[in-house]
Amino acid sequence: MDADHPEAADLAARLLSTTARESESSAIRDLLEHARRPDVISLAGGIPAPELFPLARLQEAVGQAIEKHGPAAVQYGLTSGEAATREVAARLTGVGTDPDQVVITTGSQQALDLLARVLLDPGDTVVTSDPDYLGALQALRSRKPHLEAIPLDTEGMQTEVLEERLRAGLTPKICYVVSNFHNPTGASLAPSRRRHLSDLATEFGFIVIEDDPYGELWFGDGPLEPIGPGNPLVVRLRSISKIVAPGLRVGWMSGPKWLTEAIEVAKQSADLHTATFSQAVMVATISDPVWFDAHLDQVRAHYQAQRDAMVAALERHLGDRLQYRVPDGGMFLWARCSDESIDIEALMPRALEAGVAFVPGAAFAVKNPATNSLRLSYATVPPAQLDQAAERLSRVL
Amino acid sequence: MDADHPEAADLAARLLSTTARESESSAIRDLLEHARRPDVISLAGGIPAPELFPLARLQEAVGQAIEKHGPAAVQYGLTSGEAATREVAARLTGVGTDPDQVVITTGSQQALDLLARVLLDPGDTVVTSDPDYLGALQALRSRKPHLEAIPLDTEGMQTEVLEERLRAGLTPKICYVVSNFHNPTGASLAPSRRRHLSDLATEFGFIVIEDDPYGELWFGDGPLEPIGPGNPLVVRLRSISKIVAPGLRVGWMSGPKWLTEAIEVAKQSADLHTATFSQAVMVATISDPVWFDAHLDQVRAHYQAQRDAMVAALERHLGDRLQYRVPDGGMFLWARCSDESIDIEALMPRALEAGVAFVPGAAFAVKNPATNSLRLSYATVPPAQLDQAAERLSRVL
Repeated sequence: MDADHPEAADLAARLLSTTARESESSAIRDLLEHARRPDVISLAGGIPAPELFPLARLQEAVGQAIEKHGPAAVQYGLTSGEAATREVAARLTGVGTDPDQVVITTGSQQALDLLARVLLDPGDTVVTSDPDYLGALQALRSRKPHLEAIPLDTEGMQTEVLEERLRAGLTPKICYVVSNFHNPTGASLAPSRRRHLSDLATEFGFIVIEDDPYGELWFGDGPLEPIGPGNPLVVRLRSISKIVAPGLRVGWMSGPKWLTEAIEVAKQSADLHTATFSQAVMVATISDPVWFDAHLDQVRAHYQAQRDAMVAALERHLGDRLQYRVPDGGMFLWARCSDESIDIEALMPRALEAGVAFVPGAAFAVKNPATNSLRLSYATVPPAQLDQAAERLSRVL
Repeated sequence: MDADHPEAADLAARLLSTTARESESSAIRDLLEHARRPDVISLAGGIPAPELFPLARLQEAVGQAIEKHGPAAVQYGLTSGEAATREVAARLTGVGTDPDQVVITTGSQQALDLLARVLLDPGDTVVTSDPDYLGALQALRSRKPHLEAIPLDTEGMQTEVLEERLRAGLTPKICYVVSNFHNPTGASLAPSRRRHLSDLATEFGFIVIEDDPYGELWFGDGPLEPIGPGNPLVVRLRSISKIVAPGLRVGWMSGPKWLTEAIEVAKQSADLHTATFSQAVMVATISDPVWFDAHLDQVRAHYQAQRDAMVAALERHLGDRLQYRVPDGGMFLWARCSDESIDIEALMPRALEAGVAFVPGAAFAVKNPATNSLRLSYATVPPAQLDQAAERLSRVL
């Protein structure tokens, strides 16, 4: 509360909306404040590696965009996004997506927020994994839904548990899934579960939100097939944040027309449209397929090498004190302490003192906190420091 | 409704939220579709003149931003905005604004949307002018408030009417005011009314949202003093959309800490943060005060010449059939037909047939439609066409 007005607290209590009074900044965010100390090696971040941002290509793209579009590159634009952006977005989404089914959003986070707004009334049911991505939980919770938490294993959400609950009478409007290299657990939804989930959506009539920011970051075989290709109940969220750069704030969603039309109306009120400048720069940047393919290869190779370095460091310093599945894509490794009595969150102050930060698994809980798990990001820390971080971690555990 | 799923209408009815089912695209937007025909001269737009966008300067600024910040220019950023952006924003806002009181938003539209979210519960009272800016009305209405419409004259909102209603028991949470060169009426709030409104806010404890996108576009004397300098109940919205370019989507709000903190939490959920790239480009663009002052002079001179051309055209072709106050800033001229029996909205089809478009005053109504008024934008149409448009208008009226 500020000191610039003696009655600030009273004003806040009287003038803020119910939702605003109940909202709090996310725990992860407050935690990251501490992780910024220079002596702390942070495995807590969720940001992509800055050395992968194609700065020269982006600068070149600005020139191309201005030359091609002139003032239109920075004029007001269409709420659903410029036609050229929606074409590129549809192509990147694949599965026969029509540009008319795409709405360009100010990052995927806005798509989540708008979907929550246009689909949820207070008390409506939303299915999520447990644990799940904090940004999605925050956007969904702002509508005060009932969150139905489905447990998750190394093959993603346990759709058989979801089916049981649906047959027992659960009537969700939304099932939210990060299908590839889930944040925080790194798990990808197994192909059979993708089919199962799509079938359940059709049978019970709910929307599947397939949030897929990490799908291009695969290390072994190419990407898995999306959830329910052709199923009009599946809404797909994509973004350039992890494959080009997040600071342009360009994401998109595709889905059935009745839904994208409602999203468009909500977006008009939310921010009129996503920056035409960012859109023009994005389109110009990835318009050269040879460059873009080579860039994606480089991004994948980088994160794969980072993962290898983290796994080697954990093996070296922690051995069997940590249990985890080696992630085959994305930015995160989810580990569980073999000693089940360890409460990771309680260890945080000691970890920061030892100079290492991570996110306790409990921070991602929907219902059942994973008290002896932790999320480790290998995205941004150089290999030598990953080794040092693992050594520090071993002293704390 | 789409044809890609036979039950699309059923799904929409069952799955959309109450708000989404009740929302509709704005009337002005649908109307603008027609105004896009090449044979129509459109005075209906609300967009700035594209020839004023400083494309060369923007391109140069991109290079400077990338050189200065490196990858941070396109990395994830702070929800409240980057420190350098908030500094520039605070300086442009003036009245001793502290950068810590500023939140950078994805255009002013997002500030309106977030303010509605964090301040309003359904049924809360909001004071607006009548007529008023459609984008604000749309954002406010999404929270289902009671809108209390205060009549407006050539000196802006009639604050003496507001005072009467406050003394009679009205308890608003918000009073929304476009203080300079109001959209749609072009009116600026008189200095005495600014003081009056600020005093009323203090006495009755409500927030004044001073939305000021046009303040820099003054033609005669310099800008008017903002509403209630130093009053912690006044929230100020500003933007670069009309003075640099709208397609970067950079706006900002300043206000008391208890409110900006709540806004930050809501914004984190809405879109994480405003594009760091746009912010870096904005800061670099206007970091040279000599260039920026000369640019603003050029922008003002351009719109003033446009206004002069429109007024001359209206005089020439319509004489005393239209009544209006010559605007001394901004982008709009608000005119009333001397023949009070004319229903402007009913004339629209004939006007489009004659090849001229404008926005009927009734489109901006909160409560009492100004049925024989119309909003004419002189921002983007070349002088020769302004003359032709007035000639066509004279045939229709």
